[in-house]
Amino acid sequence: MEEIKKYVEENKERFLNELFELIRIPSISSLSEHKPDMYRCAEQWTKIMLAAGADRAEVYETDGNPVAYGEKIVDPALPTVLVYGHMDVMPVDPIDLWNTKPFEPVIKDGRIWARGADDDKGQAFMHAKAFEYLVKSGKLNCNVKFMIEGEEEIGSPNLPKFCKEHKDMLKADVILVSDTSMIAPDVPSITTGLRGLAYWQVEVTGPNADLHSGIFGGAVANPINVLCKMIAEMQDEKGHITIPGFYDDVLEVSAEERAKMAKAPFNLEDYKKSLDIKEVKGEEGFSTNERTGIRPTFDVCGIWGGYTGEGAKTVLPSKAYAKISCRLVPNQKHEKIAKLFKEYFESIAPDYVKVKVEYLHGGPSYVCPIDLPAYAAAEKAYEEVYGKQPVPVRSGGSIPIIATFEEVLGIKSVLMGFGLGSDAIHSPNENYPLEQFYNGITTIPLFYKYFGEIMKK
Amino acid sequence: MEEIKKYVEENKERFLNELFELIRIPSISSLSEHKPDMYRCAEQWTKIMLAAGADRAEVYETDGNPVAYGEKIVDPALPTVLVYGHMDVMPVDPIDLWNTKPFEPVIKDGRIWARGADDDKGQAFMHAKAFEYLVKSGKLNCNVKFMIEGEEEIGSPNLPKFCKEHKDMLKADVILVSDTSMIAPDVPSITTGLRGLAYWQVEVTGPNADLHSGIFGGAVANPINVLCKMIAEMQDEKGHITIPGFYDDVLEVSAEERAKMAKAPFNLEDYKKSLDIKEVKGEEGFSTNERTGIRPTFDVCGIWGGYTGEGAKTVLPSKAYAKISCRLVPNQKHEKIAKLFKEYFESIAPDYVKVKVEYLHGGPSYVCPIDLPAYAAAEKAYEEVYGKQPVPVRSGGSIPIIATFEEVLGIKSVLMGFGLGSDAIHSPNENYPLEQFYNGITTIPLFYKYFGEIMKK
Repeated sequence: MEEIKKYVEENKERFLNELFELIRIPSISSLSEHKPDMYRCAEQWTKIMLAAGADRAEVYETDGNPVAYGEKIVDPALPTVLVYGHMDVMPVDPIDLWNTKPFEPVIKDGRIWARGADDDKGQAFMHAKAFEYLVKSGKLNCNVKFMIEGEEEIGSPNLPKFCKEHKDMLKADVILVSDTSMIAPDVPSITTGLRGLAYWQVEVTGPNADLHSGIFGGAVANPINVLCKMIAEMQDEKGHITIPGFYDDVLEVSAEERAKMAKAPFNLEDYKKSLDIKEVKGEEGFSTNERTGIRPTFDVCGIWGGYTGEGAKTVLPSKAYAKISCRLVPNQKHEKIAKLFKEYFESIAPDYVKVKVEYLHGGPSYVCPIDLPAYAAAEKAYEEVYGKQPVPVRSGGSIPIIATFEEVLGIKSVLMGFGLGSDAIHSPNENYPLEQFYNGITTIPLFYKYFGEIMKK
Repeated sequence: MEEIKKYVEENKERFLNELFELIRIPSISSLSEHKPDMYRCAEQWTKIMLAAGADRAEVYETDGNPVAYGEKIVDPALPTVLVYGHMDVMPVDPIDLWNTKPFEPVIKDGRIWARGADDDKGQAFMHAKAFEYLVKSGKLNCNVKFMIEGEEEIGSPNLPKFCKEHKDMLKADVILVSDTSMIAPDVPSITTGLRGLAYWQVEVTGPNADLHSGIFGGAVANPINVLCKMIAEMQDEKGHITIPGFYDDVLEVSAEERAKMAKAPFNLEDYKKSLDIKEVKGEEGFSTNERTGIRPTFDVCGIWGGYTGEGAKTVLPSKAYAKISCRLVPNQKHEKIAKLFKEYFESIAPDYVKVKVEYLHGGPSYVCPIDLPAYAAAEKAYEEVYGKQPVPVRSGGSIPIIATFEEVLGIKSVLMGFGLGSDAIHSPNENYPLEQFYNGITTIPLFYKYFGEIMKK
């Protein structure tokens, strides 16, 4: 480990400069105007892979954004690690809440501030540098493949097809991913569960044009009032989602496992204080960590309709919209939930409005068994760097493609995340602590070391 | 009347050109960037007044937008008519729904298409031209004063003070206003009641920043979900507003008057068809015309929060907003309703969010007695031009300043509107039928004729 640390120390500045080049490309996958940036980003990634020691690296076209793929085959007899990451980032609005320019990385207070600093440019880039070290030091004891995609933040719509079409090329013993977070800088953890996701856009139409709220108000249904009522109806007083059949397939977690989960360090007062909320709110009968770890959710991610400008405009609008997402838990099938949601939303729509439900995307949940050889290797690597055994954690987030990898490629993933809860990913002022960045580059080569050893036995 | 008609016929083109000059000024009062346009518009109005025959016309400053005032005092012994109108217009968004440029008037299908074509540039301008005719023909038998304000669409916040400060200058026997509509082109009507208005902006804050809906979703209250629930709670299944005390002062209309109102021509099927709605929706126990005429309302005029761009962004937002308005009916005091709303909204806010309620503006309702001499004069004028006695109508709209005039100046208003329900005021593609425009210019001089005669007796 000391040798790795020395390598990191000596190359810090270069590592940051290279990462910043990547961050400066505004690769927002949900906005079509950034399509050219996705290609720039993919090209940049192939350069990074080749410079780090890959035998070959190429940009692969898909029906959507490109995939950057690279590999170094040391010996076909050795175990193979497939590193997965994503080059795309979330939109940056509300832009006025950023303290710095989102695509001009700045180092301040020991952190890198930028969109993608953590999610997932910063974290994926650690793998390139760990790989570089292993190649240069001659210690690479596995074959390595890199697959960096450009549509993770929009649900990886084209990656399943890419995997199917390149099943042989992607063959590996394990998929290694850094796109999650640890409990705290001094509490390493490995994400063993991910929630699934279903995401819709709904549209409620009342009259065929915006109306004068005086002339028509009171006699014609207002689609915003109606949408609010419909959204309100979709959860009951206990925080249960009222869509019939929604909970049918939810994997109930045993009392024993819940007791184990309850031991993870968590301070509710600190949690509330950091979010500036007086109370938490969620499904009755579950703790905060259970609510995010093992229970599904119903969140309106966006809503709009009518007049939203300065001052007062008295209007009875024609349309109202919402973007709604549900996080799903093991055994819930997102395709089934998508159908149940649509049926229910349409069924509770009163006959004085028309509704449209569009399913934007979805993905399954994932569980990583802790008796996996790769899990053991990751555990040992963290322990060596952080001096503590990492805690297995069920995360509330979703990386839908992880479950798809298992389905399509038949390969399990190990989620070695180095992010922190305070990194504000998906939010203004995303950041990534330098210490986590350097620790990540130090930990990853140790994973290879132990994984190679375990697989040899 | 024939002489007036001839005058209108001979000057049609000039009238339109002059009106179009006025319309081209984008005098949107709710957007501060248009402040200079308000001054341009006021200057234009003084030119119009002077050209039409006013003794004097001036732009008066207020704490907000200016007022254009002009007068012609024929003889202090004669009755005085104060014409009120407004030069400001509503915003034009959603701009992409317009078929023409909102501030570039176009004549098509016998209508003028533009923002302000009816409300209230087109209608106020008719008074200038009617006045011009009376002056030129030597038939002006009343003193005339014009007060054209620039803040009607934002609730006339500075006009009450202007009225108080210029009480003597504004002295009149009646206020004449064209800012309402008729039932149909062949069913003349006079608005005898106006609803009051109260308008708020509310803000609901959950966590102190936008959060990742996976990491925090399910455990932290989502302010959009909460706002929707709060809005839903403010009306019950019967369409009643649940704010305690909201209905306490509502003037209940007698069964006799309701029976009279029910005789106004109205076809529910046509109404629904024109709005493309399957059903109407409103307070139980009241007809459509009663719902807009004599009952208060609760409409969300705008709502926004979270991600509203293209595609999917999984975010648990920090804030959600809504603009909410209530139309009020006689005896409801908007100041009291403002207070009740704020108290109730705050009281139903759960402790896991913070709420802010800002009262943007409000105004009282108004009733015009049909035994007023000026009402009789208006009735006779319409009858002569349209061949039918006009129907007295309680309108659902609000012109809050009308009630203020009564309060501050002690003068009743007569609402001689020539708009039509199809004029799309406050909406994209606002328009004003040429026939109504010309008929208005023809009817108004007859009002002066009969009003002068009645007041002489």
